[in-house]
Amino acid sequence: MYIILVYDIGEKRVGKMLKLCRKYLHWIQNSVFEGEITEVKLKELVVKARGIMKEEEDSLIIFKSRDERWLDKEIIGQERSSTDNFL
Amino acid sequence: MYIILVYDIGEKRVGKMLKLCRKYLHWIQNSVFEGEITEVKLKELVVKARGIMKEEEDSLIIFKSRDERWLDKEIIGQERSSTDNFL
Repeated sequence: MYIILVYDIGEKRVGKMLKLCRKYLHWIQNSVFEGEITEVKLKELVVKARGIMKEEEDSLIIFKSRDERWLDKEIIGQERSSTDNFL
Repeated sequence: MYIILVYDIGEKRVGKMLKLCRKYLHWIQNSVFEGEITEVKLKELVVKARGIMKEEEDSLIIFKSRDERWLDKEIIGQERSSTDNFL
């Protein structure tokens, strides 16, 4: 399964969330990640994310597609992920 | 066509970008929008976005799906768009 994950999280929790999401997905922009993931790994990620989040303040949205080919991606301006390795 | 649009834009230009994207799409989180849009309207949006962006600094990513039904959406925590009308 291919997913796009976006979060909007309180500043204090951003570092932890970034680190968590990077273990499972590719960082592509600010608070946006994408990647192939199994149902089991995604559940694991969501459980861990809930542990970091304050659900009354923070927001996490996951878009799931059975196949990456069903989505086209267009990037305008900077491709953030190209600097991913340097962070 | 159904799209998800995410941007990462310098603070000075965020207000303009937000206003522009809201004309074409539904705001769902921080710098994330979604919605049905025609090819023509999307081109118009991209041209206007380029006019706002500093392409050497800013980033705009558009995921396109021919059909919204090909994507499942899961929201954890707050659904930001529910407060959209109050902003």
